[in-house]
Amino acid sequence: MIETPYLLFLGDAPDPLAAKVAQGIRDWRPGQSVGQFRMAGCRADLGLPDMTLTEAKAAGAKTLVVGVANRGGVISPAWKKVLVAALEEGFDLASGLHNLLRDEEDLAAVARATGRRLHDVRVPDVAYPIANGLRRRGRRMLTVGTDCSIGKMYTALCLEREMRARGMTATFRATGQTGILIAGAGVPLDAVVADFMAGAVEWLTPDNDPDHWDLIEGQGSLFHVSYSGVTLALIHGGQPDALVLCHEPTRTHLRGLPHVPMPSLEALRDLSLAMARIANPGVRVAGISINTAALPEDAARACLAEAEARMGLPATDPFRFGAGRLVDALAAL
Amino acid sequence: MIETPYLLFLGDAPDPLAAKVAQGIRDWRPGQSVGQFRMAGCRADLGLPDMTLTEAKAAGAKTLVVGVANRGGVISPAWKKVLVAALEEGFDLASGLHNLLRDEEDLAAVARATGRRLHDVRVPDVAYPIANGLRRRGRRMLTVGTDCSIGKMYTALCLEREMRARGMTATFRATGQTGILIAGAGVPLDAVVADFMAGAVEWLTPDNDPDHWDLIEGQGSLFHVSYSGVTLALIHGGQPDALVLCHEPTRTHLRGLPHVPMPSLEALRDLSLAMARIANPGVRVAGISINTAALPEDAARACLAEAEARMGLPATDPFRFGAGRLVDALAAL
Repeated sequence: MIETPYLLFLGDAPDPLAAKVAQGIRDWRPGQSVGQFRMAGCRADLGLPDMTLTEAKAAGAKTLVVGVANRGGVISPAWKKVLVAALEEGFDLASGLHNLLRDEEDLAAVARATGRRLHDVRVPDVAYPIANGLRRRGRRMLTVGTDCSIGKMYTALCLEREMRARGMTATFRATGQTGILIAGAGVPLDAVVADFMAGAVEWLTPDNDPDHWDLIEGQGSLFHVSYSGVTLALIHGGQPDALVLCHEPTRTHLRGLPHVPMPSLEALRDLSLAMARIANPGVRVAGISINTAALPEDAARACLAEAEARMGLPATDPFRFGAGRLVDALAAL
Repeated sequence: MIETPYLLFLGDAPDPLAAKVAQGIRDWRPGQSVGQFRMAGCRADLGLPDMTLTEAKAAGAKTLVVGVANRGGVISPAWKKVLVAALEEGFDLASGLHNLLRDEEDLAAVARATGRRLHDVRVPDVAYPIANGLRRRGRRMLTVGTDCSIGKMYTALCLEREMRARGMTATFRATGQTGILIAGAGVPLDAVVADFMAGAVEWLTPDNDPDHWDLIEGQGSLFHVSYSGVTLALIHGGQPDALVLCHEPTRTHLRGLPHVPMPSLEALRDLSLAMARIANPGVRVAGISINTAALPEDAARACLAEAEARMGLPATDPFRFGAGRLVDALAAL
């Protein structure tokens, strides 16, 4: 578990997109960050108070989170200076970068000397068990998609926000690096060793109160051959009671596979149910989440109405139009 | 690639079963081992010449293969003495043990000093790519099973033997530790990091001659929630042209999951085809391999006849009755 609250490190982000991890943390955990730390030349701004390390420490911040992508896969000397100073001020560090904090000898040495922790959420730090397939108490929802990078994390987060607003008990379960930094915990599933994938998902979604919902962040797609094994481990380890189908209507081919057209929502429904019934015969499809960011509002609403009529399931863009109808469907299951 | 021929190390095996890896190598690569090395108290015997290290070296052996399971997960001092002597005699070492040769400081030091190699086939030593899903030339068969440990490796090896006897070009592609020691190369898929599983299978089964068959060792089962993600990575990374369904008719529940009954061959066919068509729309089920070791011969033949009539596919126990009818079916595809 990463200690909160955070100070969000934006570094010298060349544009807002480079700071999208920090943006996600600010959007989804608005009370969790006391401020932002920006270096000279930073072109991102989260609208949070700019703070020095000392100011953030005084405001209670416990962890400096690297919320920006680095260039060229190296942690630059300019960043390094801030990260070392943060450790010396008493901050833990957290990062989802491919090049790990712990692999930087100076950071590792200062962390040892100061007793601070380096959280590299890119890689697992737990010895996960082999999955045992036993049914667990509590309810579980998993987002599954026609493709990768299609809104599965945002959909699960939207559901959590709406459920909590209604007084339901619900926990977003992160399975990717950005999700882990938002939630402060989770499983970086794409970096888990094959034999332990499903066991890691069982570990992430343990026995719970009968009316508690685990809202599990999906990964990959059963139709995307590069990552489908990860997706299936989520379906079988998560043993969901409910699936939410995620789709992007303007995409013409699978991400990174230009020779493979997008599957239909019907194909996603049928294959996902066939696989999910192996772990939980009672699983149902609760509804459809369509990422309409690329469409003007009237086209977005028409797209949702068409999908809803065709599939006989509630369809919404939960980030744009709210997750209420999906939560209605989950609550009614 | 592990250099051949081998000297098979049986150590102080308490019974023949403890030396089943060595048994597999002897059964499937009969010309590949010059002899066996047995210590005092060894209760396994492969029927190969007993040799000292010096005798085996003179007979041309290049690699000492640990063909025996160790007790308690430790490499005993008695074993260690032989392994060190083998390195000093000029042998490479190969092992599929969970505790790695490379993690033994004395073995690692002697290997460095002598310039010999330590092959720990339990873990990958290749930086596999992310799968790209592109079609490759050549033909591919994958064994899929109703459960784990059901005959998928033996079936692929039987097919290789029969194809080669007919003058066809075929290569067994190992995806587990025993298979890798038999073949001298392969991918230890259960130890690969999730994101690279399907890419590792693509790497293992590259472009080939149009009439060449890759005979891919399956792992796990789509119905076994602990390992199904690994199975799906094989189906999508291997993009098989043909599947052979593997089954064990006397098993009552899935291995390690006493609460889960065995699926039917029909369910295996339908789900495997649905998943395999995503990577290769032309995939076909070629036939059925049933492990009848637990049945007397008349019951075994009746079981095969029943499965064949019911499924409309050739069914055999290829280890007991030959793989001819399966190869006929593959050749006719």
